Amino acid sequence: MKIFESKDGINYIRRGQMIPTETVVNMPDFHLIENRKAIGTLIESKGLTEWSFSLSANDVVYGLGQNMRGLNKRGFVYESFCSDDPNHTPDKRSLYGAHNFFVVLGEENWGLYIDFAGKVTYDIGFEDKNQLKITIEGVDFDAYVFKGTFESITKQFRALIGPSYVPPKWAFGYQQSRWSYEDATVVKEIADRFDSEDIPCDAIYLDIDYMERFKDFTISDERFPEFKSFVKDLKARDLKLVPIIDAGVKVEEGYSVYEEGVEKHYFVTDDKGKPFSAAVWPGKVHFPDFLNADVREWFGNAYHEMLEMGIEGFWNDMNEPAIFYSEKGLNEAIAFVSAQAGQNLDIYTFFTLKDKIMGLSNALSDYKAMWHRMTTRSGELKVNHYDVHNLYGYNMTRAAAEGFKRFDSDRRFFMLTRASHIGMAKHSGIWTGDNHSWWEHLKLNVQMMPSLSMAGFLYSGADTGGFGGNVSAELMVRWMQFSTFTPLLRNHSAMGTRRQEPWQFDQATLKIIRDQIRMRYALVPYLYAEFMKANQDQTLLFAPLAYAYGDSRSLLVEDQVLFGEGLMLAPVIEQNALGRYVYLPEDMVLWKASSVENLNQESFVKMEHGDHYLPLAINESAVFIRKNHLLVLTEPRNRVSKLSYDHLTVIGYVEDEATYDLYDDDGVTNQFEKGIHHKTRLTVVRVGETYRLSVDTTVTTLGNIELYIIDKNGKTHHLKQEKGVL
Amino acid sequence: MKIFESKDGINYIRRGQMIPTETVVNMPDFHLIENRKAIGTLIESKGLTEWSFSLSANDVVYGLGQNMRGLNKRGFVYESFCSDDPNHTPDKRSLYGAHNFFVVLGEENWGLYIDFAGKVTYDIGFEDKNQLKITIEGVDFDAYVFKGTFESITKQFRALIGPSYVPPKWAFGYQQSRWSYEDATVVKEIADRFDSEDIPCDAIYLDIDYMERFKDFTISDERFPEFKSFVKDLKARDLKLVPIIDAGVKVEEGYSVYEEGVEKHYFVTDDKGKPFSAAVWPGKVHFPDFLNADVREWFGNAYHEMLEMGIEGFWNDMNEPAIFYSEKGLNEAIAFVSAQAGQNLDIYTFFTLKDKIMGLSNALSDYKAMWHRMTTRSGELKVNHYDVHNLYGYNMTRAAAEGFKRFDSDRRFFMLTRASHIGMAKHSGIWTGDNHSWWEHLKLNVQMMPSLSMAGFLYSGADTGGFGGNVSAELMVRWMQFSTFTPLLRNHSAMGTRRQEPWQFDQATLKIIRDQIRMRYALVPYLYAEFMKANQDQTLLFAPLAYAYGDSRSLLVEDQVLFGEGLMLAPVIEQNALGRYVYLPEDMVLWKASSVENLNQESFVKMEHGDHYLPLAINESAVFIRKNHLLVLTEPRNRVSKLSYDHLTVIGYVEDEATYDLYDDDGVTNQFEKGIHHKTRLTVVRVGETYRLSVDTTVTTLGNIELYIIDKNGKTHHLKQEKGVL
Repeated sequence: MKIFESKDGINYIRRGQMIPTETVVNMPDFHLIENRKAIGTLIESKGLTEWSFSLSANDVVYGLGQNMRGLNKRGFVYESFCSDDPNHTPDKRSLYGAHNFFVVLGEENWGLYIDFAGKVTYDIGFEDKNQLKITIEGVDFDAYVFKGTFESITKQFRALIGPSYVPPKWAFGYQQSRWSYEDATVVKEIADRFDSEDIPCDAIYLDIDYMERFKDFTISDERFPEFKSFVKDLKARDLKLVPIIDAGVKVEEGYSVYEEGVEKHYFVTDDKGKPFSAAVWPGKVHFPDFLNADVREWFGNAYHEMLEMGIEGFWNDMNEPAIFYSEKGLNEAIAFVSAQAGQNLDIYTFFTLKDKIMGLSNALSDYKAMWHRMTTRSGELKVNHYDVHNLYGYNMTRAAAEGFKRFDSDRRFFMLTRASHIGMAKHSGIWTGDNHSWWEHLKLNVQMMPSLSMAGFLYSGADTGGFGGNVSAELMVRWMQFSTFTPLLRNHSAMGTRRQEPWQFDQATLKIIRDQIRMRYALVPYLYAEFMKANQDQTLLFAPLAYAYGDSRSLLVEDQVLFGEGLMLAPVIEQNALGRYVYLPEDMVLWKASSVENLNQESFVKMEHGDHYLPLAINESAVFIRKNHLLVLTEPRNRVSKLSYDHLTVIGYVEDEATYDLYDDDGVTNQFEKGIHHKTRLTVVRVGETYRLSVDTTVTTLGNIELYIIDKNGKTHHLKQEKGVL
Repeated sequence: MKIFESKDGINYIRRGQMIPTETVVNMPDFHLIENRKAIGTLIESKGLTEWSFSLSANDVVYGLGQNMRGLNKRGFVYESFCSDDPNHTPDKRSLYGAHNFFVVLGEENWGLYIDFAGKVTYDIGFEDKNQLKITIEGVDFDAYVFKGTFESITKQFRALIGPSYVPPKWAFGYQQSRWSYEDATVVKEIADRFDSEDIPCDAIYLDIDYMERFKDFTISDERFPEFKSFVKDLKARDLKLVPIIDAGVKVEEGYSVYEEGVEKHYFVTDDKGKPFSAAVWPGKVHFPDFLNADVREWFGNAYHEMLEMGIEGFWNDMNEPAIFYSEKGLNEAIAFVSAQAGQNLDIYTFFTLKDKIMGLSNALSDYKAMWHRMTTRSGELKVNHYDVHNLYGYNMTRAAAEGFKRFDSDRRFFMLTRASHIGMAKHSGIWTGDNHSWWEHLKLNVQMMPSLSMAGFLYSGADTGGFGGNVSAELMVRWMQFSTFTPLLRNHSAMGTRRQEPWQFDQATLKIIRDQIRMRYALVPYLYAEFMKANQDQTLLFAPLAYAYGDSRSLLVEDQVLFGEGLMLAPVIEQNALGRYVYLPEDMVLWKASSVENLNQESFVKMEHGDHYLPLAINESAVFIRKNHLLVLTEPRNRVSKLSYDHLTVIGYVEDEATYDLYDDDGVTNQFEKGIHHKTRLTVVRVGETYRLSVDTTVTTLGNIELYIIDKNGKTHHLKQEKGVL
């Protein structure tokens, strides 16, 4: 083991020669250090590494990206092992992502990133409440230990992994999905309904049924007879279609992707070197070997045909990879079951039978029977899938992202994916997978957003309303209130569940949801600015209160989150609640956000530091503006592209002075990477009994600005400024 | 349809001739009323009855006994259909009990009890948030509509169904269970450990492995070679053994219960009149036809052998009835799977295959293929199981209870059961089934206790720590803090999960749990008194705040419950929480209960009406004493039988005067039914700057009484009274 240190004090630990993940892209200068004291206790045994740390009584552990349970991860066992399991019950240890970064705050603050391609298990004070025990399924890995404040630790980590994926700006609009809008007629009906109901929307999703029998990169002629012109028609209405691509390639003679893949040995192989056969939606499939650079190029180019038809983005799914069954597994299970015919089963044999069938999906034995030809700097490496499992979805999406770049290097494309590894954060956004219409999953969504920010997944969000199960009007509304602030705002639900488009409930609910989506559009310039700044400054877009507040109470708050530099959100996450408790670590201004119309001086209430019970009617959510911070709204429109700077509303809680940088850019190209963007600096200064706004901007279309500035006595000052003059 | 009215204003609705449930045992005088306005909207169609009611915006719906979700049931769909499903996720609609009683509080208060043996579905503002829609799977049923206050409605209902089951007093002690303490050596080790650790305990459970290959009423000679003397030995230590009895009787030549059952046609039959064959733990079983009086007598008598050996109680399990598979179902499934051998399965065939196997357990098709010879007043009735499903577990337990009565009519026996119907409340207690070590299930436990009280299930509690899954020390402690107040306090967990006896964690946790169990024992006289009075007065032992408080905020509180006449409990139910919010509908006194030792004047804090954040360390739980109420503690001992009145501690929040009736009785016989019991009336009156206690008692052993009386200014008065003289 070698330990290095950077000038910023990051410790870099190298054990053996890890399978490269290409996650760390900005390696600082490190120098080897000798005789340093050990970081935790590290034991190697039987090919595993056990790494233990002591936890003090009040230490809090944040992180692990997309995983179960609370903000504070203490008290349970978690795994990093990309898993397609649609039942996110509290006993589950992993979801779709593998995000090996966490931060401990307490007696000593530290963070750890384990750069590793395989499975890692974290016992965070479960077996022994005072121990954090990590089991790495391997002996070769890199690790980085960070010290400092919560903010500096997460910044240092994010600097290592580089900037996160930036979608086109329309991706901050409302997105409507369903498994499935099965043909062009249905998609058009959905699009028309949004317009006739006057509800903003920017994208409609195509789930697996748009394909010709679930074959990647095909389009069903029957369901979408004129796909290209259909895409064009929607585009003319400024609506995007987002088709799904699955990891598995259907085994079918005459299907070019399959045939080319077989011919060029592009598929993951079995123990005998033949393409590994498993079944997913299309039935029998082979899995492209995304760990091979040639395969990535081939698969990435396959997206081009739809890009040429006008498609501007995709969602990659089933890329853990999910396996319904492998050929071998199914044959064995059927043989076992068949052998029981006519037998007088004892009960344990029956359970074995049941387990054989239930255990067919995502079986570890299948993962261990799959082989990759991984491209590395030192040539092609034959690796077992199990050891690189967490890189699979990552590299599928990397293939797509690199394909997009080859198609048009300056254009941004929309990319969302299910399975992920921290290394993927630069290539794509993620949704939080197949959640349910459970209040518990709304809470999980709230608690997961900060850990996703920590892991670099800034463009993310949940299936609003829940994917599985049936949503109530109330849960739909409360979830929309939270998702109004998540960069990805997508309403998605599964086949067989209650329909949950905004108009599927009663008229009162429709109005609330419409108001909420209009609020989202009014917030887009602000959300986009916060997103871009969090990305460039390596700050957290969503954060636990402890990110900004050092008091011990803030460490305990599990159902409020900071958003960006100036807001705190306290969503209602309980059925039938008409209010909730909030803890304010300092004085803040409450906006019971229900609509962006009819704002007035009574819309904002200054609240004192401390604990409060807040009544919140079904159409109200609690948005807090932090001290000396500003929030900017524009006028809602029905598409992101129609939003303007014609009339901005600035809401601020300003004791003396507050400044806000309203970042903006063209929203479609990568020119921002060269620093090309608009900046509008808004500064509100108290001058005696009133306030003065000064604006420093490169935006030529800036129109009137209306201000609601709340002073330290709670008085709201309503001011208007025409074209820059107050 | 006929509608009758009682002089108390209860409406009794009779539609057709229902299958008798024998639930209503105290029928008041009713007179037929004509031309009364309809109660809701009732529609019959295709053998079903749909009954709809309007809900006002702020109506709250309490009840449905053992079911999912919150105190307020609004916003979801529930079923009354006894179900053995060990995954109590938020989308489940039913658990093990079928409890068709609920109360609506709001613009108008009303309650409804549907007396029916089959399935009932309740859409409580889910499909349409302003509608309560009940679907009864039949057209013949009785129903009772109640009006009045929450308290009067529940009293009227409880008066109809008669007094609830009363266990022996030792059942208020701590009970230790595990699937399984598999032999006498292990049971003895557990018993010894409780004594050596100085932890109070009254009962140890025997799960299925004590039997000879899971055969009811057998004892494995190998595992319990000297069962009778073993029972005697434990009894000498004042410890009870509680064996399990399952519903299904093993099919095995030479096994007398099986042979006699077949010979006498005592088993539920299939469509052809042969005993219905299904598999449960023993492998192939037949189900006794508990709806037949002869069968009940036969099965009830089968308990006698173990009673003669000194066993004093049982738990009846698997009596929904749970079916792992039926012979017919399994054969069909195996045939289907076998037919797929060598086929190239399409994905939908694979899902069908999976469903065939997964659908084997508790299949409706099996329930519909089972037939009963039900005993009714008008003779034997052939009924399909599906139509009387909810009576099955009820009548198994009734068989046991009636058997106990025949064994010794004056003695109380311990009886706990899993499946239930409201009619069973007079025969047995229930545990809340196979929960998980999830924080969500601790919350569910808290929320379920009031609805169980409403349904008459006063003797109940959850598997503390959780049955399935692995419990953390923290969850164990927080759950113990709540279960300290549930009449049934049982620690039970499943095979393969983390061991969760009090000593299975760290030393600090052991101490906390020991203190907590000692607190429970100190509370037993009080808990027992509250239990007996709630039973006799038809009041709720656990209740939503709205039971006593009329303010609108009380209607919204979902995580605090009233206990008995004088307490409010606010348990910590969140992982890593070191405190919680509470709402006080009036001024109350807080006891941060951590131990009953070292009480002092600082132990009690008066708190003002309103909202508070309470810090609560891991060993503290929030017990509130309501205004002008008293709480009584005795000195803890290691067995309930050792508790005495030698030294009582009375804690009270007394502005002017408070009275408490400390009911007591012999705890072992049914003499209490004749009114034979002890009453100790404690009256604390403010006299100027101090307080006077007067005691009116029939207890001759009453010793010293120590008082902590908190006055309206929050001052604690510490007083001592020797042998009745202050």
